[in-house]
Amino acid sequence: MKALVYDGPSSISWREVPDPSILAPTDAIVRIETTTICGTDLHILKGDVPTVEAGRILGHEGVGIVTEIGAAVAGIAVGDQVIISCISACGTCGYCLDGMYSHCLADEGSSGIGWILGHLIDGTQAEYVRVPFAGTSLHRVPEGVTAEDAAMISDILPTGHEIGVRYGAVEPGDVVAVIGAGPVGLAAMTTAALYGPSRVIAVDIDANRVEQAKRFGASDGVLSSDADWKDQVLALTDGLGVDVAIEAVGVPATWDMCLAIVRPGGHVANVGVHGKPVSFPLETAWIQNLTITTGLVNTDTSRMLIKLLAQGRLAVNGFISHHFALDDILSAYDTFGRAAETKALKVILTA
Amino acid sequence: MKALVYDGPSSISWREVPDPSILAPTDAIVRIETTTICGTDLHILKGDVPTVEAGRILGHEGVGIVTEIGAAVAGIAVGDQVIISCISACGTCGYCLDGMYSHCLADEGSSGIGWILGHLIDGTQAEYVRVPFAGTSLHRVPEGVTAEDAAMISDILPTGHEIGVRYGAVEPGDVVAVIGAGPVGLAAMTTAALYGPSRVIAVDIDANRVEQAKRFGASDGVLSSDADWKDQVLALTDGLGVDVAIEAVGVPATWDMCLAIVRPGGHVANVGVHGKPVSFPLETAWIQNLTITTGLVNTDTSRMLIKLLAQGRLAVNGFISHHFALDDILSAYDTFGRAAETKALKVILTA
Repeated sequence: MKALVYDGPSSISWREVPDPSILAPTDAIVRIETTTICGTDLHILKGDVPTVEAGRILGHEGVGIVTEIGAAVAGIAVGDQVIISCISACGTCGYCLDGMYSHCLADEGSSGIGWILGHLIDGTQAEYVRVPFAGTSLHRVPEGVTAEDAAMISDILPTGHEIGVRYGAVEPGDVVAVIGAGPVGLAAMTTAALYGPSRVIAVDIDANRVEQAKRFGASDGVLSSDADWKDQVLALTDGLGVDVAIEAVGVPATWDMCLAIVRPGGHVANVGVHGKPVSFPLETAWIQNLTITTGLVNTDTSRMLIKLLAQGRLAVNGFISHHFALDDILSAYDTFGRAAETKALKVILTA
Repeated sequence: MKALVYDGPSSISWREVPDPSILAPTDAIVRIETTTICGTDLHILKGDVPTVEAGRILGHEGVGIVTEIGAAVAGIAVGDQVIISCISACGTCGYCLDGMYSHCLADEGSSGIGWILGHLIDGTQAEYVRVPFAGTSLHRVPEGVTAEDAAMISDILPTGHEIGVRYGAVEPGDVVAVIGAGPVGLAAMTTAALYGPSRVIAVDIDANRVEQAKRFGASDGVLSSDADWKDQVLALTDGLGVDVAIEAVGVPATWDMCLAIVRPGGHVANVGVHGKPVSFPLETAWIQNLTITTGLVNTDTSRMLIKLLAQGRLAVNGFISHHFALDDILSAYDTFGRAAETKALKVILTA
């Protein structure tokens, strides 16, 4: 088969590789219909994720057709159209039983971390993929939902929802600010709306992204390049700050912005993938009764989100900005990698 | 009357000052029977809390007899023996109505922060004190509880309980580590026991403190000066780390220690008063599904703790290490300020 192979920092190629095969009775093989590229893949390409070895097929999102299953796979059959969860969860370890699939302790990939596809084992940017723990890591695509929209359930919707909105403890009436209006930030805005906030403020350095955030449930937008951006945000609150600040970029400056606008007693939910430490001003924050959360998505709310998607209750079609054929994935990487210029959100690859 | 007056960094004196008087109809005047010194008072003395002005009477803990009340005070009468809460709460602003008294927005002290006694207005290290919002900031001492034990309700017990144990979300079966076995750390250990943890590990640099922590509910002790202190802590867990790490010191090194021992999905509850920023390693923590909390005590659990104290269910008498007469308070400051040497925990001053 053909696959997108990472050959080391700044080096990827689309080339012939051996087909995957069932290695464990809990595995399934899925023929990819639709996949996409995540910001995390760009981090890998920069060499920021040293646990990804040369030779690895990238990708942890996708929708496809089950072509083969191991003897122990329950609930999924050959021929099913399925969403591949970015988190592979054994379903039986202590963390899985607690719903924290992100820290699944299963031996697959020898790391004990639920994100293994396109990381510690071969991923979804390929014609076929082996999915471990298929019974607990695949979800059937419901009637009436396109493969493209369903692919948003692999990672970005549960990430924005679980690590942004739920960890941020968004409640009805809250003022929520989302720093970073990229795909995951937009997913946080879309799913925040489910909890009845009074305002969802999109904050981004890019005017185009701030504007388009309004299609994803943002009630207000603030351009972070404005000198008075903080005052603009505070003016949308009672003056004391936002109830929930969601960090969806992953750099120290956006972390600092969250702390600058959160009210005493508020929540800062970090969703961004960071590459270096940040400064936490405990000399002022110790007295602020803040709750700060971090996290890799668990995908424990994927079933909930699939149901809402099938009911048309999630604004998802706007996520997809570009379409490519799967074998043109190098062009897709180029377009996605220049998102500020190409205005790319999610680029969809179709086999 | 006589009072302990802060005259600027490193300068305090016990001297004659005017008696306090009722300024608002919600005030009460309390004649101090028992007061104590908090680690925060030492921070003030060092000049670390610039909002404390010269001329301020220090102290935010104490028990005494109500000698006068304003016309609007309900539920408290002249002659009542009362615990003075370190947090003054109006009871009617948005934060108070949400139970977050630490961020009371009332105008008293012109700061909108619930800790005002001995900070923005005159405090309890005096023969008399004016207590604002007396109806919501004083609690009657129950039958059978000594004034000395009751004084532990002013600050340390609710601080350890609310900001350590409750913000840390201690649950039955959890392994809890408390970094810092000073009065507030010990209060966290004592109150953690109410929630049925499987282990409470006291971690301190002082062998004497680690040892005495066992009288406050610690099941295990680890000396942080041991090179393998971290391995010792992890060996008391399933190897993945503690469920809850409570920071009760307030320096970068102890914050780092909490992050080093907390398990994925765990909680770090910061209780310590910090004087400078810490480094937060988001490049590793982003994926750890951590919850980090900070906070000034709300004293919203004081009534609960008073009830438990009256039932003999809190190990409190061990908190008091030294007794002084109130007019010998300068000696008490000296003893408390050299705690490593004098083994002081709480020093009690009796009028």
